[in-house]
Order: sequence, then structure tokens, then C-alpha cells
Amino acid sequence: MRIFAPDCMSMLRRLKYYLLTFLSKTFGGMTIFSKIIAGEIPSYKIAENEKFFAFLDIFPLKEGHTLVVPKKETDNIFDLPDDFLAEALVFARPIAKAIEKSFECNRCGISVIGLEVPHAHIHLVPISSANDINFNNSKLKLTPEEMKKVQEKIIGNL
Amino acid sequence: MRIFAPDCMSMLRRLKYYLLTFLSKTFGGMTIFSKIIAGEIPSYKIAENEKFFAFLDIFPLKEGHTLVVPKKETDNIFDLPDDFLAEALVFARPIAKAIEKSFECNRCGISVIGLEVPHAHIHLVPISSANDINFNNSKLKLTPEEMKKVQEKIIGNL
Repeated sequence: MRIFAPDCMSMLRRLKYYLLTFLSKTFGGMTIFSKIIAGEIPSYKIAENEKFFAFLDIFPLKEGHTLVVPKKETDNIFDLPDDFLAEALVFARPIAKAIEKSFECNRCGISVIGLEVPHAHIHLVPISSANDINFNNSKLKLTPEEMKKVQEKIIGNL
Repeated sequence: MRIFAPDCMSMLRRLKYYLLTFLSKTFGGMTIFSKIIAGEIPSYKIAENEKFFAFLDIFPLKEGHTLVVPKKETDNIFDLPDDFLAEALVFARPIAKAIEKSFECNRCGISVIGLEVPHAHIHLVPISSANDINFNNSKLKLTPEEMKKVQEKIIGNL
């Protein structure tokens, strides 16, 4: 049971995520990220200001993998208004630095792909090789307790 | 000869690139990107302003793969001053939009890894799947004529 429970939880979370994404794409409701920002869906929050919200990716490539999401629902990051584009990396910087301090890595890598959720998001991933930010890799399966520890570590280094 | 020549040229370019990177890392000279910006090494330039320089990656993952490089030599992108961080994506936007117009893709993805050249650089890659921006993939081998065509296409859509 101890072996299978986290896998089962992870599958359920993944299913819920895809279902919400599908519903939002189909019916044009709030994206799953807007629901997270609104607090309708719980998240491991890292930081927030008036324009951005950062929280742990629940399908992390590495411990510390964080998403930075604009509070404005925009599919393609390059369709964001200038002030959002200008503040995105400035908002991400202290989080990236905290990730670098919290986990053994060469630096914090950045990736913006955005083909699954129609709401721009910046991946911040601690990397020591290019393969650490390869989205073909299987994702880590962390328990809620492990996610909480990752969250506390990053926040402690902010 | 027609078959082997581009491979040979590509190998030589790669060798030169690694050699220059090694020398710059070892002796602390200008990075290969600063040499490109200074015009000491030719490049397929896309755009430039007072802070940034954009040119085609000579080891492209996809046709249109472009690098945006700050004119300030800084290894980790998150060590750039605020004004550079703030202007990076704003400078990249029209280039990304031109790439999206020029090549069949869902959008222009972003990646910042930076483990090979100690000079921050933003990869802009036209993507239709996450695998299109997977740096484990083998790079395209384009002839100088093909690179020139890619350059003209993007500039034409700027």
C-alpha cells in the first residue's frame, strides 16, 4: 500500500489536471492555472505579486521545478502585454536564485513550451545538464510531504 | 563530395565553436557570442538593439532556431542587471512572432540552459511539440545557403 499509494495519488492528480485542461479548452472557462491563482485548486505556492504567481509544478522534472504564471490568462507568452513581458524574468529572478541555493545544480534553467495548458507559464528547473530540462523525461513522483519540503526549502531561501 | 561537404563544414564549425568556447573559459577572453556581436565572427544576424543581438543558432534544432544574446557578457541570465532582464523578452517578441510566421509551428518556444557558453543566451525555437525543443535531439545540418534563406525569411517577417 505504501508503495502504490503515491503512484495512485499522482495518477489521480494527473487525471484531474488533464480533465480541467480539457474542460477549459473546450468550454472556455478559467484555465487550471487561473483556478490555482484564485485558490480554487490548492498549490504549493512559492511567491506572488500583482502580476505573477509562482508555485511548484506537480509533475516536476527535478525537485524545485517551479512554474511562474502571469495572472493575465494568455495562451502564448509573446501575446502578453509589454509590462507583463518586462516583469516576468525580474519576478522570476529571486525564485530562480532561491532554487539554485536550495538544490544541487549548476544553475536554474528556463523553458517556455505551453502546448498543454492554454495559459503562458515559465518553467524554472534546477539543472546540471541540458537533459535535466528535457520534457521527454519521466516526471518525479513526490509525495505531498516531499512537495511541502521542497516548497519550504525554496521559500526559506527567498 | 556534395554529400560529405556540408557534414565536413558543420564539423569544422562545431570544432571552431568548441575551441573558442574552451579558450574563452580558460583564458577569460571574449566569449564566442561577444566575438559574434563585435563582428569578429560572422553570423546570420536577425536583429539588434543597444542591449541585445539576435542571430541564427548554427546548430539548430529546427529551421528558424534563433539565439538572443545580451551585449553584456554574463554567464547566468539571472545575474543580468534588471534593465536587461526586463527588456530581454520584449526584444525577443517581434523575432518570435516572425519565426512563428516563417515556419510551420504551433508557436515559438523559449529555452535558457547556458551550460556550454558562459554568456547568457535565449533559444527561440519554432515548436509543435515539446520534443521540438529537446536539446538531446540531433541538430540540423543546414548549408550556408539554407541558413541564409532561413535568415531572409525571418527578417522578411519582422
